[in-house]
Amino acid sequence: MANIMFEQPLNEKVRSYLRLEHLAEQLSNHANKDTGMELFTPLFALCDITDRCDFRNDLIKELDRHLAQIKRWRNVENVDQEQLNECIRSLTEIRRELSYSGRLGLNTRSDKFLSAVRQRYNMPGGCCSFDLPQLHYWLAGPWSVRKQQIAKWQGEFALLFNAIDAILQLTRQSGEFVTQEAKSGFYQYSSDMPLALVRVELSRDSLCYPTVSGNKQRFSIQMLRFDNQTRASNDVAFSIACCPETK
Amino acid sequence: MANIMFEQPLNEKVRSYLRLEHLAEQLSNHANKDTGMELFTPLFALCDITDRCDFRNDLIKELDRHLAQIKRWRNVENVDQEQLNECIRSLTEIRRELSYSGRLGLNTRSDKFLSAVRQRYNMPGGCCSFDLPQLHYWLAGPWSVRKQQIAKWQGEFALLFNAIDAILQLTRQSGEFVTQEAKSGFYQYSSDMPLALVRVELSRDSLCYPTVSGNKQRFSIQMLRFDNQTRASNDVAFSIACCPETK
Repeated sequence: MANIMFEQPLNEKVRSYLRLEHLAEQLSNHANKDTGMELFTPLFALCDITDRCDFRNDLIKELDRHLAQIKRWRNVENVDQEQLNECIRSLTEIRRELSYSGRLGLNTRSDKFLSAVRQRYNMPGGCCSFDLPQLHYWLAGPWSVRKQQIAKWQGEFALLFNAIDAILQLTRQSGEFVTQEAKSGFYQYSSDMPLALVRVELSRDSLCYPTVSGNKQRFSIQMLRFDNQTRASNDVAFSIACCPETK
Repeated sequence: MANIMFEQPLNEKVRSYLRLEHLAEQLSNHANKDTGMELFTPLFALCDITDRCDFRNDLIKELDRHLAQIKRWRNVENVDQEQLNECIRSLTEIRRELSYSGRLGLNTRSDKFLSAVRQRYNMPGGCCSFDLPQLHYWLAGPWSVRKQQIAKWQGEFALLFNAIDAILQLTRQSGEFVTQEAKSGFYQYSSDMPLALVRVELSRDSLCYPTVSGNKQRFSIQMLRFDNQTRASNDVAFSIACCPETK
């Protein structure tokens, strides 16, 4: 049976980035096929999160930290210099675009049609034709037109998604998977350096899912049985990758 | 271009029934194809609404009113008696099942797995693998198994949906469409009997959507232009059906 990947952020930044990445994936599904009004769930969640926090400055600082770290590898032997330069070029470009951009997603958040729908969208069952006749008018329109509009709304967040993609990719690449065992469903780990992200992969055959608790330097994993939410009494094999914070 | 149907309830009962019908349709889409975690949007909205209000007694009373009304037609000439009896039989059966049922949707609302997911589901972006590892475990399972579980959760609301279907069908059948024109985008109507529902159908070519305001005996319709949300200055043709309340 297939393996399942679970990711646990160990700092607030990575936590936010994983949320935004998750919403970007959901939105992308809706941008490619007609799923009616359901695209608004991830779109409005994105609007809510970016309303509360402008991630631009944070992302620029984070990109700078990654750039500095990558540049240090220039002096390391056996490092593919061409790949390194390509990575620096791409991060620099993302950073540049971000630094020249306005507030991310502003036009989507201030779109009149979206604002009207957003006001009622989270009411349970609040999207009937009498609640939002304009939404029903819109939904009755051809998919080709709606698809273009969705792409436009989504595009307002493209710089955000690009930066987060690049950062999470580098973060994930920084940890290597090793096989471990949770004795009686329990595993503990201490790290010499602060961690940003822990990735746990296990087989669905284990009938368990991991819950991770702890901080950047020390965390524990409990393997809970899906059927009764209690800790597994058996030993559970899994793979784990610990991804350090950028300095 | 296709016509669009807009429905405006004129009493609280029909308003609730239309909401529940809308959620039933959405849930039904998710029960038939794998759309990941999105089935939870209508499912939890249903849980919220039925948490606040047990519709059983209301529905039984409403079914009784419809049954009484239909039985009056028995003495009317040129009415298909066979169809009438079939309708009475079906409504009586729905009423009987409803009167013997427990609180609708109770098992779905008290399901432990669903309760855990429901707590976080409405947080913007709150369904990452670190928020809800058990949800990610569940989603990684085979669709055939999940489909069965969804059918079970949905089945808990089946009596509710059946009763609402029957009532809304009778309500809708009670009004006949006539063609009208909203002069300069405005239309007004007074009825001798209290209305439950107004149905407005118009072509998407009109580039308008209707907003209905008023009460059971008198309402007005404004045709708003989708592009700028202002009232249309031209005359707008539409079809309208006024469906009376049951006595």
